[in-house]
Amino acid sequence: MQYPEPIAKLIESYMKLPGIGSKTATRLAFYTIDMQQDDVTDFAKALIAAQRDLHYCSICGNITEEDPCLICTDKSRDQSTVLVVEGPKDIMTMERMHEYHGLYHVLHGVLSPIEGKGPEDINIASLLKRLQNDVIKEVIVATNATPEGEATATYLSRLIKPAGIKVTRLAHGLSVGSDIEYADEMTLLKAVEGRQEM
Amino acid sequence: MQYPEPIAKLIESYMKLPGIGSKTATRLAFYTIDMQQDDVTDFAKALIAAQRDLHYCSICGNITEEDPCLICTDKSRDQSTVLVVEGPKDIMTMERMHEYHGLYHVLHGVLSPIEGKGPEDINIASLLKRLQNDVIKEVIVATNATPEGEATATYLSRLIKPAGIKVTRLAHGLSVGSDIEYADEMTLLKAVEGRQEM
Repeated sequence: MQYPEPIAKLIESYMKLPGIGSKTATRLAFYTIDMQQDDVTDFAKALIAAQRDLHYCSICGNITEEDPCLICTDKSRDQSTVLVVEGPKDIMTMERMHEYHGLYHVLHGVLSPIEGKGPEDINIASLLKRLQNDVIKEVIVATNATPEGEATATYLSRLIKPAGIKVTRLAHGLSVGSDIEYADEMTLLKAVEGRQEM
Repeated sequence: MQYPEPIAKLIESYMKLPGIGSKTATRLAFYTIDMQQDDVTDFAKALIAAQRDLHYCSICGNITEEDPCLICTDKSRDQSTVLVVEGPKDIMTMERMHEYHGLYHVLHGVLSPIEGKGPEDINIASLLKRLQNDVIKEVIVATNATPEGEATATYLSRLIKPAGIKVTRLAHGLSVGSDIEYADEMTLLKAVEGRQEM
């Protein structure tokens, strides 16, 4: 005996999402049937709209309804600094800090020889093009603190520095509020290396 | 700065699903944007269809496209046995065993004083009505092995037994393939109590 077709199809759709296996998909599908009708209609509309109305900014690669995006067109922002991130989500995280007022550039990935991702597979060419305008003075590389993120940062630094543009990397160290006891050795090493005078 | 509206709405919809918080919802929403267009359209259609085309069987409470459901209308099944489960998903689990050929009844919940769920809040009245036909000789209570499931089983047993109908409960004991070392005390106690001659 199989599930009735409508629920089987919904389970199949849920399973296409990352991190959702057949058990979770089944649970979500059964939950969906009992949801408010309006909520389900809104959900279906939101799925279609998200893909139809959202694009990547042709300048920075951020996700946006208008092209160029609101950050690229905001002339009140510091035009001389570009912060490079792996994905559009990272822009939101940075903006939540309320302390960075420059521009962004989204790589849409990192260099990863294992996954066969080279420089031409991520958004590097458009970054180099932006740097030719002589307005940008500093590139802050904010890729993740993973081996791939570090390798990408090093690669970008070697590529950009010769053009006389300052390249910086986010500091590594202890998380604010964390215990030294629980810090891993690599983080601790970075924290000691990057110690600052008080 | 906020997310563009289409993605904010999609995140909101994902967050209405059980067990999905804002971080997972954001991850799923960004993933959705990069999905195949067909997959997203199918997903949206499946959401609408699942709610529109599925109903609960008026006899047993199982989820179905036609009413009564395929199990209730299958005359080749043993009409004298009814297996009582908490939810429609449990029917699928039982059917996967391929060894039970009787009928089902879905309670759509369990008795739970903490959640204020009494006998009138779950599908008990319709079960009692089914038992009046004199065809049903045995009711197998297959509620979960939780305190609420046990209480519901006891309640049903007291209600149904006086009518001269046999009421049974699924056996408790060690899982097949499990180590005694890792069994909890309650399971072990039930396994000893329910020991069978070899």
